[in-house]
Amino acid sequence: MTDKPRHLLTLDSLPRATLEALLERAQAFAAGEQARDALDGVAVCTLFFEPSTRTRLSFQLAGQRLGAHVLGFDASTSSTTKGETDLDTFRTIEAMGVRGFVIRHKGDGAVTALAAAAGPGVSVLNAGEGRSAHPTQGLLDMLTLRQAKGTDFSQLKVLIVGDVLHSRVARSDLHALRTLGAGEIRVCGPAALLPDDGTLRGCTVVDDFDAALAGVDAVMMLRIQRERMEDGLIASLDDYHRHYGLTATRLRRAAPDAVVLHPGPMNRGVEITDEVADGPQSLVLRQVANGVAVRMAALDLLLGC
Amino acid sequence: MTDKPRHLLTLDSLPRATLEALLERAQAFAAGEQARDALDGVAVCTLFFEPSTRTRLSFQLAGQRLGAHVLGFDASTSSTTKGETDLDTFRTIEAMGVRGFVIRHKGDGAVTALAAAAGPGVSVLNAGEGRSAHPTQGLLDMLTLRQAKGTDFSQLKVLIVGDVLHSRVARSDLHALRTLGAGEIRVCGPAALLPDDGTLRGCTVVDDFDAALAGVDAVMMLRIQRERMEDGLIASLDDYHRHYGLTATRLRRAAPDAVVLHPGPMNRGVEITDEVADGPQSLVLRQVANGVAVRMAALDLLLGC
Amino acid sequence: MTDKPRHLLTLDSLPRATLEALLERAQAFAAGEQARDALDGVAVCTLFFEPSTRTRLSFQLAGQRLGAHVLGFDASTSSTTKGETDLDTFRTIEAMGVRGFVIRHKGDGAVTALAAAAGPGVSVLNAGEGRSAHPTQGLLDMLTLRQAKGTDFSQLKVLIVGDVLHSRVARSDLHALRTLGAGEIRVCGPAALLPDDGTLRGCTVVDDFDAALAGVDAVMMLRIQRERMEDGLIASLDDYHRHYGLTATRLRRAAPDAVVLHPGPMNRGVEITDEVADGPQSLVLRQVANGVAVRMAALDLLLGC
Repeated sequence: MTDKPRHLLTLDSLPRATLEALLERAQAFAAGEQARDALDGVAVCTLFFEPSTRTRLSFQLAGQRLGAHVLGFDASTSSTTKGETDLDTFRTIEAMGVRGFVIRHKGDGAVTALAAAAGPGVSVLNAGEGRSAHPTQGLLDMLTLRQAKGTDFSQLKVLIVGDVLHSRVARSDLHALRTLGAGEIRVCGPAALLPDDGTLRGCTVVDDFDAALAGVDAVMMLRIQRERMEDGLIASLDDYHRHYGLTATRLRRAAPDAVVLHPGPMNRGVEITDEVADGPQSLVLRQVANGVAVRMAALDLLLGC
Repeated sequence: MTDKPRHLLTLDSLPRATLEALLERAQAFAAGEQARDALDGVAVCTLFFEPSTRTRLSFQLAGQRLGAHVLGFDASTSSTTKGETDLDTFRTIEAMGVRGFVIRHKGDGAVTALAAAAGPGVSVLNAGEGRSAHPTQGLLDMLTLRQAKGTDFSQLKVLIVGDVLHSRVARSDLHALRTLGAGEIRVCGPAALLPDDGTLRGCTVVDDFDAALAGVDAVMMLRIQRERMEDGLIASLDDYHRHYGLTATRLRRAAPDAVVLHPGPMNRGVEITDEVADGPQSLVLRQVANGVAVRMAALDLLLGC
Repeated sequence: MTDKPRHLLTLDSLPRATLEALLERAQAFAAGEQARDALDGVAVCTLFFEPSTRTRLSFQLAGQRLGAHVLGFDASTSSTTKGETDLDTFRTIEAMGVRGFVIRHKGDGAVTALAAAAGPGVSVLNAGEGRSAHPTQGLLDMLTLRQAKGTDFSQLKVLIVGDVLHSRVARSDLHALRTLGAGEIRVCGPAALLPDDGTLRGCTVVDDFDAALAGVDAVMMLRIQRERMEDGLIASLDDYHRHYGLTATRLRRAAPDAVVLHPGPMNRGVEITDEVADGPQSLVLRQVANGVAVRMAALDLLLGC
């Protein structure tokens, strides 16, 4: 493997060799490889300033499978951190001897700032930071694509659909797809939900969902947040479904063996219908399974000896 | 042991041989037998759609004593499951590699429905489902009775007291008592809180608590929910205590060596007085201890190799 | 080591030999000694009637490092304990086979009362009780002072600053400092926040913070609770800071190598400035690290074989 990185904060700057090494290792874990003593006695803390049971659980399982002691600290509800800065909370847990931090925060830059303050021998894994990055989600999406389509992404046509503007998942997917040399990246979603800050560089924006689907090998659906209606960014969930909901009929426009991904939790009947979500082309549960494997690989890379 | 069941959802359909095998195994655990590697590396998740710290803790201890990795998911408070169906929540955690689910749900049929959707190699243990079933509570009550009264239930007179209508505990106890051939099952409680749907088949309903107590070997008290007053099903807690509260005086009507059970948490001064709850005939804490043993036996039966 | 105590409830009555033995053992753990099987298979429950994520996490890590199964029960939020007495909650978990209880409670005497009810072989560690005692905090403060100033406290001048009236930390520190024969103990704080019940026996009360600081070797700052303003006990946080906030300028009045302690979480800008909290004389994070070591020593002493 390449030089061992200290933290895993974003896929943006991750060298292709490191990214592929992580995917190879994750694939081995997904195929059943065990490393039950890899983090024997190492304390890992899931420090969530924004709640997320699913991601926390996935990291917890990954850590336990490697023999780590996994602690949870839900800083979004803890009354004991009142008046305490995020940095003091972090440093306090660090002082207890925790060596690995799995951090989620709604503020852009917040996880990165804590990682910058980490002491020697302490690693931070970003479990979701503002709109910026969710690197393990990007990795598990890539692992899922590789399993379905092979390791050479150069001929792959991928379509990302939905609220890219607010999506850390989309940003991490885009970083990884570019690094792995995806053949074509299309993006489709309401104009008000597509960022114009360079996030979409190298992507083809296609306004019409039906047109965007034509011949793609993979459709990566994003979750629509109900609060986008309150923001006035979408008219209604019905309207959203009409324009950007993935139905079985629409999916026929994609390549015959196209696969469908969704980071979950799904709004069934809004961005995706039951027929697609539960259909043979859906890899939604495979993504979840790969999530544990990818997080094992990341924890092992950063914290293993 | 008999054929290995896939799930533990109800005691209704459980063959007597399986039930007795479970009780024998639980008795061995209660007596100190260890099986610290029985579920080594197996992931078990307590998935509670209705909160219950006591039952969750008991299952957690049981799983840990068998070497399992026990995860907790409180779906009643998780904000991350908003808009997600119970089935998607279940399938997501299943996809992470969890093999054993301990599920509580307030909806009748909800745990059974999730079990029906479980993939190969995945087992569901019902930790309380609506008014229908709470099989491990039924098992621990039977284990407690066996320890006190021996394994032959044919001469045993058992009295169940209180809100049978809303009680999954009572239903599981009734299933088990019938399967084990209890000599006589009496039921006593406010008419409005006794079901007329066949639940009480084979039972003797006795209106007057004092009369019902005469000569019984075991009194199984049920917890009264305060919301039954709001429902108009009981007049007041005072009134309930006057008619159905177990006092030391009343208990003298039972057999001299009669035992008292209560599933907890107790409303002291309502359905049971301190003198009885803490008296020599009370097996309340023995029930709790047996709960861990019974859950170890159930987890081991379903998930052990 | 001296006679093995059953519980750890207060430092008040703890013999000097036991206290010093605990500190020696904690120092060994702080220096890296391991005892990964000391509590192998022993179940320990953190039973918190008053929430505290930091102390709970510290005990959890300590227990895990000794091989214990650590369970958490947050009785302050549990809906399942409604109507149940604290004692029934305690006895229920005890009946599950838990041998070590780490209990926090806002009521004075509440932890002690539960310990008095504990069955044979069950030990209680007080993790904070009303205003009375927080013995592991007292121990970790003593360990921190020893590391900085040596084991002979007879020449040591220590200053405790702030709301001693409501502080269990201060009371445990005072007990320990007296037992270890500290040379001089000064106390400084608003008159309304200094107790007149004998807590300060043997201490020198100095009204003016600048005067109190003169030549001391250690400054132990207490956390000020915002609700003291609502109580009318302090005028404002600004006013408190002006009179009792530790600034770098003020700290120069202490001995040149004086150290600063704070139990956390810190109200930066109120009782302590950033410059002091993060400065070279601050031992705040060392205290946190020592907390795990002290809790390992206490758990091992009470529960190890």
